[in-house]
Amino acid sequence: MATKLTLSADDVTGVVGIIPTPSTPTADHTNTVNSVDLEEAAKLADAMVRGGVDVLMTTGTFGECASLTWDELQSFVATVVDAVAGRIPVFAGATTLNTRDTIARGHRLGELGADGLFVGRPMWLPLDDAGIVRFYRDVAETLPHLALVVYDNPGAFKGKIGTSAYEALSHIPQVVAAKHLGLLSGSAFLSDLRAVDGRIRLLPLENDWYYFARLFPEQVTACWSGNVACGPAPVTRLRDLIRAERWDECQALTYELEAALQTLYPSGNFAEFLKYSIQIDNAQFQAAGFMRTGPTRPPYTEVPESYLDGAREAGRRWAALQQRYAAPHLDGLDVPSEVTLTQTP
Amino acid sequence: MATKLTLSADDVTGVVGIIPTPSTPTADHTNTVNSVDLEEAAKLADAMVRGGVDVLMTTGTFGECASLTWDELQSFVATVVDAVAGRIPVFAGATTLNTRDTIARGHRLGELGADGLFVGRPMWLPLDDAGIVRFYRDVAETLPHLALVVYDNPGAFKGKIGTSAYEALSHIPQVVAAKHLGLLSGSAFLSDLRAVDGRIRLLPLENDWYYFARLFPEQVTACWSGNVACGPAPVTRLRDLIRAERWDECQALTYELEAALQTLYPSGNFAEFLKYSIQIDNAQFQAAGFMRTGPTRPPYTEVPESYLDGAREAGRRWAALQQRYAAPHLDGLDVPSEVTLTQTP
Amino acid sequence: MATKLTLSADDVTGVVGIIPTPSTPTADHTNTVNSVDLEEAAKLADAMVRGGVDVLMTTGTFGECASLTWDELQSFVATVVDAVAGRIPVFAGATTLNTRDTIARGHRLGELGADGLFVGRPMWLPLDDAGIVRFYRDVAETLPHLALVVYDNPGAFKGKIGTSAYEALSHIPQVVAAKHLGLLSGSAFLSDLRAVDGRIRLLPLENDWYYFARLFPEQVTACWSGNVACGPAPVTRLRDLIRAERWDECQALTYELEAALQTLYPSGNFAEFLKYSIQIDNAQFQAAGFMRTGPTRPPYTEVPESYLDGAREAGRRWAALQQRYAAPHLDGLDVPSEVTLTQTP
Amino acid sequence: MATKLTLSADDVTGVVGIIPTPSTPTADHTNTVNSVDLEEAAKLADAMVRGGVDVLMTTGTFGECASLTWDELQSFVATVVDAVAGRIPVFAGATTLNTRDTIARGHRLGELGADGLFVGRPMWLPLDDAGIVRFYRDVAETLPHLALVVYDNPGAFKGKIGTSAYEALSHIPQVVAAKHLGLLSGSAFLSDLRAVDGRIRLLPLENDWYYFARLFPEQVTACWSGNVACGPAPVTRLRDLIRAERWDECQALTYELEAALQTLYPSGNFAEFLKYSIQIDNAQFQAAGFMRTGPTRPPYTEVPESYLDGAREAGRRWAALQQRYAAPHLDGLDVPSEVTLTQTP
Repeated sequence: MATKLTLSADDVTGVVGIIPTPSTPTADHTNTVNSVDLEEAAKLADAMVRGGVDVLMTTGTFGECASLTWDELQSFVATVVDAVAGRIPVFAGATTLNTRDTIARGHRLGELGADGLFVGRPMWLPLDDAGIVRFYRDVAETLPHLALVVYDNPGAFKGKIGTSAYEALSHIPQVVAAKHLGLLSGSAFLSDLRAVDGRIRLLPLENDWYYFARLFPEQVTACWSGNVACGPAPVTRLRDLIRAERWDECQALTYELEAALQTLYPSGNFAEFLKYSIQIDNAQFQAAGFMRTGPTRPPYTEVPESYLDGAREAGRRWAALQQRYAAPHLDGLDVPSEVTLTQTP
Repeated sequence: MATKLTLSADDVTGVVGIIPTPSTPTADHTNTVNSVDLEEAAKLADAMVRGGVDVLMTTGTFGECASLTWDELQSFVATVVDAVAGRIPVFAGATTLNTRDTIARGHRLGELGADGLFVGRPMWLPLDDAGIVRFYRDVAETLPHLALVVYDNPGAFKGKIGTSAYEALSHIPQVVAAKHLGLLSGSAFLSDLRAVDGRIRLLPLENDWYYFARLFPEQVTACWSGNVACGPAPVTRLRDLIRAERWDECQALTYELEAALQTLYPSGNFAEFLKYSIQIDNAQFQAAGFMRTGPTRPPYTEVPESYLDGAREAGRRWAALQQRYAAPHLDGLDVPSEVTLTQTP
Repeated sequence: MATKLTLSADDVTGVVGIIPTPSTPTADHTNTVNSVDLEEAAKLADAMVRGGVDVLMTTGTFGECASLTWDELQSFVATVVDAVAGRIPVFAGATTLNTRDTIARGHRLGELGADGLFVGRPMWLPLDDAGIVRFYRDVAETLPHLALVVYDNPGAFKGKIGTSAYEALSHIPQVVAAKHLGLLSGSAFLSDLRAVDGRIRLLPLENDWYYFARLFPEQVTACWSGNVACGPAPVTRLRDLIRAERWDECQALTYELEAALQTLYPSGNFAEFLKYSIQIDNAQFQAAGFMRTGPTRPPYTEVPESYLDGAREAGRRWAALQQRYAAPHLDGLDVPSEVTLTQTP
Repeated sequence: MATKLTLSADDVTGVVGIIPTPSTPTADHTNTVNSVDLEEAAKLADAMVRGGVDVLMTTGTFGECASLTWDELQSFVATVVDAVAGRIPVFAGATTLNTRDTIARGHRLGELGADGLFVGRPMWLPLDDAGIVRFYRDVAETLPHLALVVYDNPGAFKGKIGTSAYEALSHIPQVVAAKHLGLLSGSAFLSDLRAVDGRIRLLPLENDWYYFARLFPEQVTACWSGNVACGPAPVTRLRDLIRAERWDECQALTYELEAALQTLYPSGNFAEFLKYSIQIDNAQFQAAGFMRTGPTRPPYTEVPESYLDGAREAGRRWAALQQRYAAPHLDGLDVPSEVTLTQTP
């Protein structure tokens, strides 16, 4: 366990992979006590590191932070930390319904070896910008040794973090980055980027990364991606192309990613996706076959069956990209070539 | 602890009082371990019973279910159960972020003596009607001895429970009632009332009760009220007038309640109220002076100061009504007259 | 043409029927010059009067105020006025994109014999309550001889008229009534009813009428109905039952109306209905067969075909009710019995 | 009047200036017959051309298309066409409540010399993508000689034009461009840009132009700007910098524009701005002093006074930029230097 803050914004550079929490076959039963497939969790974490992911985050929305028990969450984070073994930073998700619970969990996750926390705010009631800043400041001051990645998810947490809150958050030493909506937030990414002025890293989705990286090459040096669980190679490839400023190829690869993900939203409806994102993402991960996952956990088990078809197609498309970009040495870019898929037959 | 289901819809009749969780002076600090004023909690619960409240519910939104620690919640419920001492049914709030946690908490709260649970669904993602029904069915089947009051709060839980879900919920034996939006839901109360067909009790807010009771006197025989924490007499008086079918007086008293609450919403804006309802309700309770409460708990501590003025005025207005209607024997209606305010100087 | 205001709130009592504008077979072509079937318009207006409708209103939303040319609107209103021949008041729809156009049109429609105007506010931008009041005051002061029915349709006009605006509107002598959302507005109908304090008539939909009439029998003495174009008898029957205070029968008939209309909203989705209400209502009218109507006018011609099935079913169900309640003398209530359907083979 | 289509997407390049409709001192009275200050209109149009604006559009939202009478709109467009005298293309706003009225008005505006039309769809009900495409196709087929700029304003017209509709619209020969939300639409600008594939010009706001121009230099060769009425020099300067690919200066100038406009939205609230945009923009134009304008026309006359302070500040800030960038020859870029302000003392 760290006793002082060791990470800064500079440590959040490249591909920030957010991983799901692999589940056992009975994870959807309410009487299941251990729903986490820890063996697969270790494999997945290791595959992320070997696949070139630069930073790892756990237990966000599709990581089922909400529906893991506290015991499960601890086991999972401990397993991930052990598997990563210090090769890259690990931020553990510690979102709860209130400040004190997040602090208590964060403290324990730090003891388990997490380098930092990935924290969304409590969401029973929305918080305004003053409330948001106070929440993160409270966590940071109580856990001064743990770096924080702010989780800005308007659907989950009932509102977008405002630009003035970003400005304030960027002055909290522990806050090193924010998982941002990127282009989906309209012009807010640009405003927030100016507000944080390089003090923290704003992370767009991998799909938007090229655009912002080209416009702000010194500031937007990292992205977040959950699709890494379908295979990290397309995203690490994008990272390498961005670093090489090979813009035309960045655009072309971005179009490929978009095409792969096109069927993920039911009838193209993003709002409808958000209502079922845990269930839909799970189906995508399963279909991609890069990792093994079981069912989602209660209560997020129900979903119109037709919504899953597009998710599975998106998973298969991504798998094809993974196959292409994981191939050995494309062109001399620093692309990891030795990754073996962890898929268990 | 009960071993079989002992409550039915008929046990939810009259005034269902929902109480706040009295807080200690340092409850707004993140390092406070015991933020519940248990002495005041016992007084409040007792005052509710002696004041004529028919059913008690704890730890909803303004009861700070979200921001109590699990230890605090247990102490509080145990204290309330002891204070009530079986005189009226007690439903303990057990809303969490997932099904298994709600079941685990519900089980323990039943051991502590709660007759039933007051349960909202997990709210990280919204649940559709199929998900809602499965959630409550899962809880009911695992805790067959505990009655359930469904908590239908669209703001907190990201959507209104649909009419078809109400129909399905009303067939679950453990589900005995639902805290409903009432008139605020437009015509949904009427649709939902038809759908449940008397199998469960739909509870409107006390302000709407007269209207629905007059139209459906055999079905809408109960209301919920959080304002009882400002003094229960106005609401128990309304109950007695409704039972006596003294409709003109019901209307007049309803107008009085509306007038008292008129300033509760900032500039009359209900949506804005919902964003800060914990903080606003707390200020109302404090100003009414019927009970003693300290500050709200993190993260729900920030609120525009100007929003609190109206809340305090609403509290004072209610206190005036309390004083009037708690007076001994108004007219021979069965009005409890012996209640002494529990206010500690 | 009237030269002084002759109508008051008391003249808006009973069933306020809002009629569609019958269209010619080529009404959906953009080069059609006269899209109004004037012969059917005259028949329809006459059938409304003979069927017992108490007040007639034209050219609201499904009356295609938006997509009639000004020439057509004049011909149609003149035809209706002639057919009604003073037997009941006629309010002509005069909603436009600005105040001056509404005044100019209103002036002309008054010359054509309309007793009053049915006016929604301009909707390019929303208007706040101050803007709403100024708009209606401007119209009233410029056309002092014409009574006004305020058209409160939040979907069309981008917002609900607020309670304080209702209070102000009720003091304008020309304003005699408002077509209100009723129960769909939640508790707003009650607030608005108190605010207007009997000075103007608030009109709920016929489906909600019984509820409000029972609670406020002296104030809610009228309703609006567009379903009268499927046959007015069910609604005039409801009126008679309300006047006779035969409440159980009111409730039963209200349930019948609800059942008939149940399929009108696509998959029960009211928001989706609102997007296509012109097209959907037209299909309902056609299927009911009480009147003859052609296609809707551009641009409101496109609609998912599946949405029309429910509309047609609703039309057929209403036709069955019409047949039942138009039958001669049910029970001695003052029910018009001589109405012949105007359907042309 | 043109008899065949003479404009293409290539003619919509550079700065597309959208102008307000200068008003007389009594324009806010409902009995005013001629509310347009035609002398100022001619001056303003001329100043736009001389100031380097590349394309002119009239009578959008702040151009008060909604609240001009048809006579006024004709006079105004005729005046602008005469003043421009063929030097740049003129697109006249012809939005109405229905297809046939837009066609009739468009025909007449073409006779008056407009090169094309700037058309939003009817907005009483929303139109879905099928309805949107049919609407524009109907207009285009009936007025084959007039180029069309699609007006995509979700607030005014009740919804964003979907990507599939953009694809279809781009195949209509008359459609040459669309006024787009740009960054405010999140990732939609990118999707729509791909869908139209160069067949039509998508116009972002001047504030977003640099970003899209840098990413798609061959496609995003034009922007729209209403701020040109505060002085066109900042925007024509931006155009010249973009063409010269002087990206750092583009970014710096974009920041200057943002800073100037920062106070335009009341408390930074864009939604609140949209409710009063006519009134707020008018205050901005007045304060900038580049043109002379009187009051807004009914019903868009009411606005919280405090909202206007920020608008005026934005106008003054823009005027300062205008003064800087209108100065003779900054650096050899092709900047018009001879423009004299048209402000009348």
